[in-house]
Amino acid sequence: MKKIGNSTYKTEKNPSITYFASAVGEKEGQGPLGQYFHKVFLDMYMGETTWEKAESRLQKTVAQMVLNQSKKQAKDIDLIFAGDLLNQCTASAFGMKDMNIPYMGQYGACSTMIQSIISAVTAIESGGASACLCVTSSHFCSAERQYRYPLEYGGFRTPTAQWTVTGAGGCLLEPSGAGQTVSYIVPGKIVDLGIKDANNMGAAMAPAAADTISAFFRDTSTTPQDYDMIFTGDLGAVGSKLLAELLRKDGYETEGRHKDCGAMIFDCEDKQVCAGGSGCGCCASVLCSYILKSMEKKELNNVLVAATGALLSPTTSGQNQSIPGIAHLINIVNL
Amino acid sequence: MKKIGNSTYKTEKNPSITYFASAVGEKEGQGPLGQYFHKVFLDMYMGETTWEKAESRLQKTVAQMVLNQSKKQAKDIDLIFAGDLLNQCTASAFGMKDMNIPYMGQYGACSTMIQSIISAVTAIESGGASACLCVTSSHFCSAERQYRYPLEYGGFRTPTAQWTVTGAGGCLLEPSGAGQTVSYIVPGKIVDLGIKDANNMGAAMAPAAADTISAFFRDTSTTPQDYDMIFTGDLGAVGSKLLAELLRKDGYETEGRHKDCGAMIFDCEDKQVCAGGSGCGCCASVLCSYILKSMEKKELNNVLVAATGALLSPTTSGQNQSIPGIAHLINIVNL
Repeated sequence: MKKIGNSTYKTEKNPSITYFASAVGEKEGQGPLGQYFHKVFLDMYMGETTWEKAESRLQKTVAQMVLNQSKKQAKDIDLIFAGDLLNQCTASAFGMKDMNIPYMGQYGACSTMIQSIISAVTAIESGGASACLCVTSSHFCSAERQYRYPLEYGGFRTPTAQWTVTGAGGCLLEPSGAGQTVSYIVPGKIVDLGIKDANNMGAAMAPAAADTISAFFRDTSTTPQDYDMIFTGDLGAVGSKLLAELLRKDGYETEGRHKDCGAMIFDCEDKQVCAGGSGCGCCASVLCSYILKSMEKKELNNVLVAATGALLSPTTSGQNQSIPGIAHLINIVNL
Repeated sequence: MKKIGNSTYKTEKNPSITYFASAVGEKEGQGPLGQYFHKVFLDMYMGETTWEKAESRLQKTVAQMVLNQSKKQAKDIDLIFAGDLLNQCTASAFGMKDMNIPYMGQYGACSTMIQSIISAVTAIESGGASACLCVTSSHFCSAERQYRYPLEYGGFRTPTAQWTVTGAGGCLLEPSGAGQTVSYIVPGKIVDLGIKDANNMGAAMAPAAADTISAFFRDTSTTPQDYDMIFTGDLGAVGSKLLAELLRKDGYETEGRHKDCGAMIFDCEDKQVCAGGSGCGCCASVLCSYILKSMEKKELNNVLVAATGALLSPTTSGQNQSIPGIAHLINIVNL
């Protein structure tokens, strides 16, 4: 691939998403995108004994669906790129450990799915890999007890708090030109404007999203109007508004051209989910359902997907540190 | 790059380690490799107010030393690959957040440095990147309180327990052919033989190391005798013995050809460190000091470095899960 401008890379081997699958929990299944998901689990344990094992089950489920669709076996896959929000990324390690495929653990918080796809695209562009699997997940219950309070505590949520999506998305990247092709990638920089409210991550991540998206428009001399839609990972309602303002300051009007996976996945009348969904499984499950299915049907032909991540931990928040944000972007086209 | 056999990739653009730096704590500075480190901190806080911030300081220190040596500025670096052991990889995010360089967070437990170098090599081989920075770290105090007990508790250690290294290593990869060249890479598979003792990670990781190293010998039709030395990341004394036995079963004799970074970094008479050092900073600081300096002096000209990782978390151990191991390998040569 070739570097263009300061931050963007143009692919040259047609790295394409040839197969994809998504699996979510009941709440996501009942949401506006319910019909698009490949599998909806009605039980939050998904047949396992703990929520953490359930999250690994989500990853295994989508990985197996992708392999089944592709009629490939483990030995046909060169690399797995996977990640999640659990401490030491164990949902992925335990989800993928029996696959018998070389494994590269990724961590970009809620941006991990797009970071994984960027890594897979790079491996294909290197000439070395010819099939890479990307999988990421999150689970409301495993995240809630790790990051916030035991669920039994029943704590109230602030209006800006996002709801961790129970879901996983998985996809296969091949240098085929069939399927949906990743034509540009933009690995993002960490942006930290000093926001410290861990219940308002949309505000912490929006500047990073604006930074990456603006860089892409500058590097490619394009504007929002050149794309069918710009999807962000999980800025939610609050962060989305902020992103529009920031891009407007850079001279880019996104009115009618921007949707946020976190805002799309839940019913906005549902007070419980407040500002929208989040988690590594949010962008992953929406990409590997609604977005790619809409591209297959040619309802969308040229989209940007910019997943955002908040690179904090309970420890850094406890030590009164700010929340660094990051956003990685890919441009997917129907060739 | 080109895939060779089942697991190995041969590089084609001479991706080379052109600059490197290491920084460690006082205990490591007093150990057998003390003279090789670029910087020894005598204070475990390194001028910061918390151990977690101190670990980020280690990363900043080595990154800045590498940039200074190379006379490059942030804008000359395409990508950072970094990782650590803290929850949500925050030592890296906070260490690298002000660099203003695109950032890809890596997680492979103690194998993260070699995973990062593999990612950097892949980015260079893709033709897209021309300078990538790799940095990983660990800190005894931040790890101990996150993984085991508050230090004040003064818990006894089992004889097989390893001691988390306080240290970081950083290096710059460029397609130059100058410096030390990464000629082959092997991204490892997760191997889980059911070991559950979190105080005996060497035993959990040795099968993964054997799997990756054997795969490399098979794919390249070489033997241990073709290399000046095989370095493993941090199997420690217990895991090293096990690795030798496992490789012998595969027909490879490593007697006199194998050293373990975890066993090298501390004085083996020091009862406190028991089975040796571990952590993302162990392999990183030994690679970016003793190993690469020995190669510069032509005392070593052709080495394998296989870093191992134990992909567990306190939660998975608490849920009685086994410890999945992984090992990533690179072959570094003086051209």
